[in-house]
Amino acid sequence: MSQPPRRLKDLGAHLGREVEGDADFAIDGVASLENAGVSDLAYVRSERYADRLAASRAGAVIAPPGVAVGDRPVIRSDDPGLDFSRAVRWVLPATAPQPGIHPSAVVAEGARVDPLASIGPHCSIGAGASIGPNSVLFAGVSVYERVAIGADCRIHSRCVLAEETRVGDRVILHPGVALGGDGFGYLGDGAGGLAKVPQIGRVVVGDDVEIGAGTTVDRGTLGDTRIGRGSKIDNLVQIGHNCRIGEQVIIVAQVGLAGSTTVERGAVIMGQAGAAGHLTIGEGAIVGPQSGLHKDVRAGARVLGSPQREERGFHKAMAALSRLPGLLRRVRAIERRLGLHPASDDSERPR
Amino acid sequence: MSQPPRRLKDLGAHLGREVEGDADFAIDGVASLENAGVSDLAYVRSERYADRLAASRAGAVIAPPGVAVGDRPVIRSDDPGLDFSRAVRWVLPATAPQPGIHPSAVVAEGARVDPLASIGPHCSIGAGASIGPNSVLFAGVSVYERVAIGADCRIHSRCVLAEETRVGDRVILHPGVALGGDGFGYLGDGAGGLAKVPQIGRVVVGDDVEIGAGTTVDRGTLGDTRIGRGSKIDNLVQIGHNCRIGEQVIIVAQVGLAGSTTVERGAVIMGQAGAAGHLTIGEGAIVGPQSGLHKDVRAGARVLGSPQREERGFHKAMAALSRLPGLLRRVRAIERRLGLHPASDDSERPR
Amino acid sequence: MSQPPRRLKDLGAHLGREVEGDADFAIDGVASLENAGVSDLAYVRSERYADRLAASRAGAVIAPPGVAVGDRPVIRSDDPGLDFSRAVRWVLPATAPQPGIHPSAVVAEGARVDPLASIGPHCSIGAGASIGPNSVLFAGVSVYERVAIGADCRIHSRCVLAEETRVGDRVILHPGVALGGDGFGYLGDGAGGLAKVPQIGRVVVGDDVEIGAGTTVDRGTLGDTRIGRGSKIDNLVQIGHNCRIGEQVIIVAQVGLAGSTTVERGAVIMGQAGAAGHLTIGEGAIVGPQSGLHKDVRAGARVLGSPQREERGFHKAMAALSRLPGLLRRVRAIERRLGLHPASDDSERPR
Repeated sequence: MSQPPRRLKDLGAHLGREVEGDADFAIDGVASLENAGVSDLAYVRSERYADRLAASRAGAVIAPPGVAVGDRPVIRSDDPGLDFSRAVRWVLPATAPQPGIHPSAVVAEGARVDPLASIGPHCSIGAGASIGPNSVLFAGVSVYERVAIGADCRIHSRCVLAEETRVGDRVILHPGVALGGDGFGYLGDGAGGLAKVPQIGRVVVGDDVEIGAGTTVDRGTLGDTRIGRGSKIDNLVQIGHNCRIGEQVIIVAQVGLAGSTTVERGAVIMGQAGAAGHLTIGEGAIVGPQSGLHKDVRAGARVLGSPQREERGFHKAMAALSRLPGLLRRVRAIERRLGLHPASDDSERPR
Repeated sequence: MSQPPRRLKDLGAHLGREVEGDADFAIDGVASLENAGVSDLAYVRSERYADRLAASRAGAVIAPPGVAVGDRPVIRSDDPGLDFSRAVRWVLPATAPQPGIHPSAVVAEGARVDPLASIGPHCSIGAGASIGPNSVLFAGVSVYERVAIGADCRIHSRCVLAEETRVGDRVILHPGVALGGDGFGYLGDGAGGLAKVPQIGRVVVGDDVEIGAGTTVDRGTLGDTRIGRGSKIDNLVQIGHNCRIGEQVIIVAQVGLAGSTTVERGAVIMGQAGAAGHLTIGEGAIVGPQSGLHKDVRAGARVLGSPQREERGFHKAMAALSRLPGLLRRVRAIERRLGLHPASDDSERPR
Repeated sequence: MSQPPRRLKDLGAHLGREVEGDADFAIDGVASLENAGVSDLAYVRSERYADRLAASRAGAVIAPPGVAVGDRPVIRSDDPGLDFSRAVRWVLPATAPQPGIHPSAVVAEGARVDPLASIGPHCSIGAGASIGPNSVLFAGVSVYERVAIGADCRIHSRCVLAEETRVGDRVILHPGVALGGDGFGYLGDGAGGLAKVPQIGRVVVGDDVEIGAGTTVDRGTLGDTRIGRGSKIDNLVQIGHNCRIGEQVIIVAQVGLAGSTTVERGAVIMGQAGAAGHLTIGEGAIVGPQSGLHKDVRAGARVLGSPQREERGFHKAMAALSRLPGLLRRVRAIERRLGLHPASDDSERPR
């Protein structure tokens, strides 16, 4: 790409940070310390990375004040990670396809696609749907009837947005996200079978939400399933009908939330955890990986385990469990000393 | 929509239930007690919802006999939940796209699509496949060769049905379901590598089955993988090759069944549970959430935990585990009293 | 299909194995012992299957030397399973669509599709992408810009390969695999919100890899996420950014690996296990189902449980746990005998 060189001084100005050393250094690319070449920019989190920095070929770095960087030019930053992220987008701006509707896409009459939106090959857009400006739908996105997608969204290939789904601005959906499938609800039909409970609610996704590949969010039964502004959801997560996910919530891969779970602002749910239905996970709570929730989690609490325990109790129980085989021997020794004869089979056998 | 008003008396007749109060009440919509407006129909499960009912603006309700509903018109029902579900579909009939094949769909020569079926944009239908009357394929469904889909099915966007898959009548597949991927089978190839075991069986899905978004069902190795009539499977479930799922089985989200698992009629498997291969889960058994099955589950049994325990044993073990740290201290006190000196390191350390 | 009969003697020659009995036996199909008809070939693993073999209608079998097969013709093999797999592919050769690009596919200018590749309906291939000879893309595959796919691959419907993804030769991707979604990385933005860490690395998949339906592999943050040659990954697995999966690794369904996990050659990770980030699972290690890894696993180790324990320790702890309710009673009896009075509430209660 024959574009003018990107100078370290211009990046420093963009970041609002001081440059030390050769301010005219031309940045060709960005990389980790391990992979960087002599014309790449890398970054150092702290003094602890001094060895890696010494071994790196990186031509320039972003580093905290006071950390020695050899004779490289350096941008000094109190938050090198965040400034490096911003530097990456400055050096490699996110590209977007041209605005317009690919001729192979199918847009129903009465759908509104902003002229600045980009609709990729083989997308389909149902009647009454709307797509906002600068939003990009990659190949093969399926938008059902009366869906609304805001501005500046990136909807990756093979996503499906069922009817009535609402998506805010700056939302990113990775490949294969399914919003608005029916919730899982049945009633006995009085004749020994199961009757489907109609699922007529919506999925409503706030601004600045990002949802990972293959994640599924079911529509509400009557009301809506909601994902609050700024929340980030990883891959292959299942969110049941009528869940209420607050703002700035983080949900890691393969978590499953049964129906009507409320997750309050800023809570973090680690990978593969699960929650039974109708629970509340309080503001700022942290739910450990593979936890199994069967009751509410207080705001700010840290829980772990299946069934859930408060974090300290979980670690004590697990440490104690490691000592249990020895404890059984010790109690047997005590019983012998005392001449006690426990019932020969006192165990609770697994079935 | 300017259609004639839907009168409460007509709904009562449809449900075969008595109406009390203004039988000419015009129903505009359906909603929960919390969200209902004055022209909406809601429902009350039992006396326990009296407070919510009193606070509701719902114009009419379905309620059990004897439950006070104020001066609202009411349909009396012994099963308000089921009758409300039926009312929802009466007020808001499920809509379906027009029959016919969208011009952007690709239908191979020799495929048979019933004239009453609806094939959406960008669907592809392989040679020898057949689609029954009133079945709807939403945008982008991929039907491989020699697949058979029955009548009155709804196959949502981005589903894939691999060759030879059989789907009965009134089956619902939510977005992104994959039927007929290869099972996971390899043999040592005698040269230090892995040889793929050919997977040439089918997936066979019975009538009235519903499968949630993103769920995957692998084809049989030699015989078939079967999902019995009336079974309901939630999102992101994995069903391995040669599983035999009986009738009316319920499988909740993110469950994983390894190959050749048999699940008998009416069993329920809760979310995120897993089963090792070649097991049988007996008729009517209930497998708790996040359970890990490594052996059979008897008909009617309730199991929990990983590894599985009979439900009562599981709860006793978990309660006892909470008391274990204290027990360690108590045994130490006994040993001191008796002058016993346990080996200093008796623990089984986690690795 | 009116093709010349497939004779047992020709199969024997193909396998390099001896035929006993009617070498002109015509093989119509292949099946399990249970399902085989009189013109089908089946196989017997060992003497232990004698009863099933006696009850089978199979016309011919592959069996180990010395195992009695009645008066059926038989191919003798030291490895009947592997030879039967090879026989299946000889009797039923894998078919492939015709080479060429379906007219409904969209191939960007500057993409290179080998004339021997087959591109199905509604595929899209981005600028700068390349598809090697004999590779098959089924309907609706989405290939972003600058992706490279090697020779002899089978990419099933609805797979998505994000920009820069590299796929070797003879790779199989089952329906709905998503390669190259963004990894899950955020930093505090200094204003109470979350800033997305740009994900600019690639996914690189080696030769002879097979990946199951619905599995997601995230691109690296700066470097690459790598799947080594010959590794086999089952359905609905999540592999985070910058993971390094070695050669010949086996990962069973619904496993989740957080970012920067290293899995060394030949390791096996059983279903629904999870690993926290930045761990190493050593060469040939075996991680049991539903395990939760929070620290490294040594080469060759076998671990189980959440949190992980060495296999023998896990089984001892679980057996001891079954005896814990009884142990509580025994210690209470000892205390009574000694006149000790433990604090009335010594339990660590779950929260």
